[in-house]
Amino acid sequence: PRIIPSLCSVMCGAGLAKRWNFVMSDKVSMESIVNLCKRRGFVFPSAEIYGGLGGFWDWGPLGVLLKNNIKAEWQKTFVQQRNDVVSIDGAIVTNPRVWEASGHVKNFADKLVECRQCHHRYKIDVLKDGKWISAEGKDLHEKDCPSCGAQNWTEPKDFNTMFRTFVGPVESTENTAYLRPETAQNIFANFQSVREALRLKLPFGIAQVGKAFRNEITPGNFIFRSREFEQMEIEYFVKPGDDDSQFETWVETCHAWFLSLGLKKDHLRLIKQPKEELAHYSKATTDIEFAFPIEKGWAELMGIANRTDYDLKQHGQSAKGDPEAFAAPIDVEGKEKKVPFVIEPSMGVDRAALAFLLDAYEVVQGGRSTTTESIKEEEVVLKLHPKLAPYKAAILPLSKKPQLQTVAQEIAATLRTNWMIDYDEAGSIGKRYRREDEIGTPFCITVDFDTVEGVKRPKGTVTVRDRDTMAQENVAIGDLTGWLQTKLS
Amino acid sequence: PRIIPSLCSVMCGAGLAKRWNFVMSDKVSMESIVNLCKRRGFVFPSAEIYGGLGGFWDWGPLGVLLKNNIKAEWQKTFVQQRNDVVSIDGAIVTNPRVWEASGHVKNFADKLVECRQCHHRYKIDVLKDGKWISAEGKDLHEKDCPSCGAQNWTEPKDFNTMFRTFVGPVESTENTAYLRPETAQNIFANFQSVREALRLKLPFGIAQVGKAFRNEITPGNFIFRSREFEQMEIEYFVKPGDDDSQFETWVETCHAWFLSLGLKKDHLRLIKQPKEELAHYSKATTDIEFAFPIEKGWAELMGIANRTDYDLKQHGQSAKGDPEAFAAPIDVEGKEKKVPFVIEPSMGVDRAALAFLLDAYEVVQGGRSTTTESIKEEEVVLKLHPKLAPYKAAILPLSKKPQLQTVAQEIAATLRTNWMIDYDEAGSIGKRYRREDEIGTPFCITVDFDTVEGVKRPKGTVTVRDRDTMAQENVAIGDLTGWLQTKLS
Repeated sequence: PRIIPSLCSVMCGAGLAKRWNFVMSDKVSMESIVNLCKRRGFVFPSAEIYGGLGGFWDWGPLGVLLKNNIKAEWQKTFVQQRNDVVSIDGAIVTNPRVWEASGHVKNFADKLVECRQCHHRYKIDVLKDGKWISAEGKDLHEKDCPSCGAQNWTEPKDFNTMFRTFVGPVESTENTAYLRPETAQNIFANFQSVREALRLKLPFGIAQVGKAFRNEITPGNFIFRSREFEQMEIEYFVKPGDDDSQFETWVETCHAWFLSLGLKKDHLRLIKQPKEELAHYSKATTDIEFAFPIEKGWAELMGIANRTDYDLKQHGQSAKGDPEAFAAPIDVEGKEKKVPFVIEPSMGVDRAALAFLLDAYEVVQGGRSTTTESIKEEEVVLKLHPKLAPYKAAILPLSKKPQLQTVAQEIAATLRTNWMIDYDEAGSIGKRYRREDEIGTPFCITVDFDTVEGVKRPKGTVTVRDRDTMAQENVAIGDLTGWLQTKLS
Repeated sequence: PRIIPSLCSVMCGAGLAKRWNFVMSDKVSMESIVNLCKRRGFVFPSAEIYGGLGGFWDWGPLGVLLKNNIKAEWQKTFVQQRNDVVSIDGAIVTNPRVWEASGHVKNFADKLVECRQCHHRYKIDVLKDGKWISAEGKDLHEKDCPSCGAQNWTEPKDFNTMFRTFVGPVESTENTAYLRPETAQNIFANFQSVREALRLKLPFGIAQVGKAFRNEITPGNFIFRSREFEQMEIEYFVKPGDDDSQFETWVETCHAWFLSLGLKKDHLRLIKQPKEELAHYSKATTDIEFAFPIEKGWAELMGIANRTDYDLKQHGQSAKGDPEAFAAPIDVEGKEKKVPFVIEPSMGVDRAALAFLLDAYEVVQGGRSTTTESIKEEEVVLKLHPKLAPYKAAILPLSKKPQLQTVAQEIAATLRTNWMIDYDEAGSIGKRYRREDEIGTPFCITVDFDTVEGVKRPKGTVTVRDRDTMAQENVAIGDLTGWLQTKLS
């Protein structure tokens, strides 16, 4: 794949100049998505007016709607429509003992080297044949410092990637707390309270959607790897022995979920991690990988892990001095108790949003010519699944004449009872179709003079244009809600 | 009001033992709400198995649903159903220059005193007649240290209540970043990008829902004042000169929103802040106060502020060296530009949830006796507005017989397409009604033998019990979705 020098260069908070290298996939470059996101208000570099902050992003109006739709679909599939999953929303700033028990304080570290000349620090990834290898695969001692060009590195040192802060008036070790690097541990810490308050019986799941934070040394590839991101995690607690089959079921369910929302089958693959690469707590892990247009190509979209009873036992030991403290009944009578195993489907909202944008993005060379629409050299259609599209429909009065605007605004007000609806009265109708195509609006509802006068069409009807087929249909205003309901379900 | 010694005592992260003092309102004590929240899984002390962390809370399954419903209603009213408000979702960890420009680095400070004997620190609130007064209203020099009893205080010192962290591998001043203490500044920093990408014209608003963090010295009163909380803020940008009338409109709109969702009229009041107490950036501020059962009684539920053009000018100056940098067109042709004024309706989700819980909570002494329901000495009914109720309905098969369960589960599956639905098959039907009453479920749908056999009632019908009236109605299974849709809208 061809490397494209990036448009974007954002200053990192550590003072390191970051450069993103994007790679062409067969069709869509990361650059096109970055441009679209910025131009149309999906995602901006965080506090861009101050030069941004490396690895942090602010989601704009269109991005918020996309993210909200992804989260809503996830919540609907994995919580609302099930009988066995409930949600929690734990604190981001967490008691440090949680992270001591989980192993994050000790183990959640990157290996860093420092350039002895300019003191910039870099992450190294792999130890191979006794040599430290940089992320690009070079032996460290052959690698120039990207900042000053020297080849004078320190030995690798551990760097904990949890963000640390202080609770209370004194900044001391005993007042240290951490921004959670994952939402999972909130769930384990609340396992017992939730199980008891909700009288839950195995198997059951606890789900959580929320921000997590990792002080990544090398954030990059747009929102693929950022320092602040949003997770959707489920910890699904099962009877020991049921874990293998439950694991397989979750892999299939999650894979199917992505497909049902429009990701392309040949852009997804399931990778079972080899035994020797598993985390110490994991009995099995399968990554659902997506063909991202980044240097390494296929990369993790989500992971499903069989975490065994490791976490609950750790917290039992740490909080109660007894690894069996969080055992739960495994039979109907509640006589026999065991610490449950847990299957963890863990997904990043930002990364999922990126994948959905990439697979929805289509460029039509020479324009999408029809007899009634204007033609541009190159046009973008964002073929998002209607459930994910930021706006479900756009209301477009053909002209700014008050009699059209009044009707158009009434229609907008009615449809807004149920959906996010765009309203656009600026520019030619062809231009407005293009703008809606570009942000993925599935239906454009045009209010024209026939709507109010009824010459070529019956009075009180509008034309509805389909984003993907560009077919136009006449619909009576009074039928619009029902029509849209059918189309969107 | 009578002070009740609190049940709850949570260790603060700073090592201070905190004690909450709750006060009876005319009807509902904070203690009842705390107990309900813990017992039924609305809110738990964060990571309680490790002794909690002072001022942090984990929302349990019922609490998440309540909070989600509050946020959804807010989003629906103030974003979806309007033509002039869009959303953003900015980063929590923010470039420090944002907080320098906003004045938070300099001014966001509490006055602290330290006990010279035991070195515990406490917040003081007011300077009166030249004397520093403690939060309880005592002259500081007459106040015993709550920790060791000494009367030996240092002079008050400034303490910045922003949580600080470090981005990048080095923990140094130049790598300092702050957890946002409010969501508002993300909006100002993105004002220009959002306006341009969305081609917005004055007046328009940018809304944001998200976590904010303040290192409060004295968090307390349950979720009334916590260190991590969730805000729903709108910055509504208007032409200078239109600000006074827009301000009044927003005060009315927000007040009406709380009333529409069930807060009691006589538990709400509007307090216009006197000129001398206004923040330096504010031309006018009205607080919507709620009668919380806390020591001071009436307290801020939300605030509406006329922040003038202060923030945009500060950021213009700070980011671009020009206070006019973020001027926007104020006429139709776009010739004349001015820095907009901004009206800010700012609301806390947690505090709103607390108010909704308090006003919904009713204790029925002697039980809610009917001919068919069991009687308990004291019963709780949570009369939440149906739009806010965690579950919209509960499905209750009369017995565990498979023929009832099958039908009940089918009904649950169907209704779950649209709503969060509870399912409960444990215990007597009277007990289950009580449990649903206590968590505010508006409708209990009972599947009994008539449902499958049709002796006293037509086959294929269920009885639906109304939480508030306890009236029962027969509804055909096929009509349930429509019936519930009507009742909930």
